Amino acid sequence: MPDLHQIPHLDEIAHHGEYHGVGKRVTETFADRYHHQNKVVPSLEDAIRLTGLRAGMTISFHHHFRNGDHIVNMVLDKLAEMGFHDLKLAASSLSAIHAPLIRHIQNGVITHIETSGMRGELAEAVSRGLMDCPVVFRSHGGRASAIRTGELHIDVAFLGAPSCDPYGNANGYSRDDDEGIACGSLGYARPDAAYADEVVIITNHLVAYPNAPWAIPEDEVDYVVVTDDIGDPKGIMSGATRYTKDPKELLIARNAANVIDAAGYLYDGFSMQMGSGGASLATARFLRQKMLDRGIHCRFALGGITGQITAMHEEGLIDRILDVQSFDLDAAKSLKNNHFHHQIGATYYASYLVDSAVDQLDFVVLSALEIDTDFNVNVLTGSDGVIRGAIGGHPDTAEGASLSVVVAPLTRGRIPTIVKHVNTVVTPGDAVDVVVTDHGIAVNPRRPDVKEKLEKAGLHVFTIEQLQQRAEKIVGVPEPIRYKDRVVGVVMYRDNTIIDVIRQIDEDA
Amino acid sequence: MPDLHQIPHLDEIAHHGEYHGVGKRVTETFADRYHHQNKVVPSLEDAIRLTGLRAGMTISFHHHFRNGDHIVNMVLDKLAEMGFHDLKLAASSLSAIHAPLIRHIQNGVITHIETSGMRGELAEAVSRGLMDCPVVFRSHGGRASAIRTGELHIDVAFLGAPSCDPYGNANGYSRDDDEGIACGSLGYARPDAAYADEVVIITNHLVAYPNAPWAIPEDEVDYVVVTDDIGDPKGIMSGATRYTKDPKELLIARNAANVIDAAGYLYDGFSMQMGSGGASLATARFLRQKMLDRGIHCRFALGGITGQITAMHEEGLIDRILDVQSFDLDAAKSLKNNHFHHQIGATYYASYLVDSAVDQLDFVVLSALEIDTDFNVNVLTGSDGVIRGAIGGHPDTAEGASLSVVVAPLTRGRIPTIVKHVNTVVTPGDAVDVVVTDHGIAVNPRRPDVKEKLEKAGLHVFTIEQLQQRAEKIVGVPEPIRYKDRVVGVVMYRDNTIIDVIRQIDEDA
Repeated sequence: MPDLHQIPHLDEIAHHGEYHGVGKRVTETFADRYHHQNKVVPSLEDAIRLTGLRAGMTISFHHHFRNGDHIVNMVLDKLAEMGFHDLKLAASSLSAIHAPLIRHIQNGVITHIETSGMRGELAEAVSRGLMDCPVVFRSHGGRASAIRTGELHIDVAFLGAPSCDPYGNANGYSRDDDEGIACGSLGYARPDAAYADEVVIITNHLVAYPNAPWAIPEDEVDYVVVTDDIGDPKGIMSGATRYTKDPKELLIARNAANVIDAAGYLYDGFSMQMGSGGASLATARFLRQKMLDRGIHCRFALGGITGQITAMHEEGLIDRILDVQSFDLDAAKSLKNNHFHHQIGATYYASYLVDSAVDQLDFVVLSALEIDTDFNVNVLTGSDGVIRGAIGGHPDTAEGASLSVVVAPLTRGRIPTIVKHVNTVVTPGDAVDVVVTDHGIAVNPRRPDVKEKLEKAGLHVFTIEQLQQRAEKIVGVPEPIRYKDRVVGVVMYRDNTIIDVIRQIDEDA
Repeated sequence: MPDLHQIPHLDEIAHHGEYHGVGKRVTETFADRYHHQNKVVPSLEDAIRLTGLRAGMTISFHHHFRNGDHIVNMVLDKLAEMGFHDLKLAASSLSAIHAPLIRHIQNGVITHIETSGMRGELAEAVSRGLMDCPVVFRSHGGRASAIRTGELHIDVAFLGAPSCDPYGNANGYSRDDDEGIACGSLGYARPDAAYADEVVIITNHLVAYPNAPWAIPEDEVDYVVVTDDIGDPKGIMSGATRYTKDPKELLIARNAANVIDAAGYLYDGFSMQMGSGGASLATARFLRQKMLDRGIHCRFALGGITGQITAMHEEGLIDRILDVQSFDLDAAKSLKNNHFHHQIGATYYASYLVDSAVDQLDFVVLSALEIDTDFNVNVLTGSDGVIRGAIGGHPDTAEGASLSVVVAPLTRGRIPTIVKHVNTVVTPGDAVDVVVTDHGIAVNPRRPDVKEKLEKAGLHVFTIEQLQQRAEKIVGVPEPIRYKDRVVGVVMYRDNTIIDVIRQIDEDA
């Protein structure tokens, strides 16, 4: 600005003689430009070439297509075919459908992985030492933060989108029609679109400009690839979420609702989030009844959104929905049709670098694979030590919420859920307030206020050790897992400091 | 990423011993936090102190309150009272109401100004040599681009908002109720919010979190100031726009609609923008009748939006509205209520750095103070050489659109509109295709295709020289303006190269 205000020889500037101009003028109609002056490239291969991708670079993907995703495998197959190698893959999460990555790792196409989670054959292989370098696991908020700070620099983002116009305005459903597939929110793709050097949108449904409102705006997009198949609707809308009828899960959900109520966090204007998993999602049903009985409403529901939440919004029980991920088709439809069902990105949702929405939560209800007597929670590795889960927003919401409630059955088959030490610490006990099982409730000693309130409300509170002993009594003490020294995974806390490591399974043991 | 995958001594990392944690946990309810853990500061003075503002820094403002704005004067009075000096003021535009700035310039509080335009006493004083450094005039797209590149670095943005929650989610109207005032879109404030080092929202209407959907998200906001008075609703909804009944303006508007039609840009699925001014806004009415007669619809209307456009949207004639500025209360209401009336920021609207929405325009209808025989347009200085206008999106849309139509009466009182040389070049003739006056139409020789089509449709086309001579015949040749050598304003083209300068009026001449 000072340069402009004090231009040398300003007096000598000729009448309109100095401007350069942009040179963008075209005279074709908008309709004609649509066909050949846009960002659509003939093929994925063309897009890859145009991005300038080369060995050593980082490519990224979102996981909004969950176990129906065809984008990661399609892009990796193409990259392998084109002879790429030594790439780093940074996905917001990975699913069982991504087993073909094993081949691409073995062939040297992919040498590093970052993700929120991993399941199936790929996770098994990684746990058994597939990769030379450990996988980096980050929470959803941690990933957004790492992208923002540059700790995770993305060279090329390949982002699947159920609708996109020829200039790159992309969305998780189609605004103009009911064609194509729908995943709802594209919240976890937003940091990638905003920060990646090159952004490629891959869509099966090209719609008219402007595809408004959009999840990703055209000014963040470089290339658009149109292809027949980006994912399987059945797989997109399955996986982490289901509407449970399991009596044990319903019992836990009812108890969780009672805990929230008794602890004083259910009042007119409260805020909430339900994590994935049958019992946690079902908690909303019991909260709903309490809200109706008492004539109170929820100011906002956050996070991964289900049809249970959107139904409550439509019946006037929830004012606002902030949706970073739509867990089912009802949620995707609501995002499309309801003015106050609002799509948010991962940074807004959960980054510790800013005041994010998780910081405004009264309570969150979260699942767990294991909880230990220090209230540490594992959602990443199974009782055999093998990777079979995802961090998701677990630590982000647990730390952000005023009350974090972890729900789990006391045992699963012959496996105890409450243990002396979790295999992998994902969410530290500091951020976990109450554990609700089908055999009782335990309150973290750092929350005596909550314990007192629960007891005053007539709820029986066990110590976490009592629950652990009860589990042990039912299923005994499992054989300890044998690990090798080698680290196959690094678990980051939401501030991107290391909270734990995952070691290679010792199959010979 | 490589650091993490190859951490030295990874094997030595203790079980969850290394993470730092974020330290954000609070256990108060969301309702309680609302009152004392938020970004609301007690006063504007507190906010100013907290931003760390000091001499030499740049402060910014938006102009969505137009001539009803009370923010600029309020902040400047406070800064003067607090003893600040040597500040640069970068407003998206300034109006007659900002005359008190004269005093702040005389006292040395403000030493530099950037703006899209200026009117009234301040503009008169600047034209007569008030400031030591010339004012920098940028288009809306140019300003967004300068902010994006860092050419215009904003230290502290003071952004008025008709609604805001305690964490900074701000909007141009209230979602929850009909209280307060409404300006509609806050599109021109978005680059400031995104890029300024410190962002202060000043609101008269604090609403419950989350104020969703929002124009400005909480993660871009540092402080919230609540005050009784941010602007005058009458002034907010007046100024640049009006619903004309002037027969001359209606004649011009009808001709403009006929030109667009004859030139082939009125077809099913076209895109359009109407600039401010009676005749240009009225063109929409004649286009509407043609659309109804022919059964065609508009894919999107862009830019500053009026009730004429939103009424056409509501009757199904316009699919999408991309709204960077809501010109009247009907437009603001539509933005609040209509799902496909979408708020956009200035970068998305018109930045030359990205593919912006102006590049998808079939046509734009723009006003002018002067047009010369090279088709250059002046919208910034009057026939007396005094600043009395604003660049706005004039050059951005003229260059972006496939057909740019400039509408103006041939003469205004004793002043010719078509002249041999405009006082100030704002939009170069290269970007102007057709001039429509109440005395006839002229087509830029660089668009022989348009001339041929108009004549084929039976429209008489004059040369621009014929129109100029006709104007001269009616009102004669005005006395030339006497300028001093001193430059009081620098006019930037949309790519932020200098297109012209404005010189000091010579009052002694």
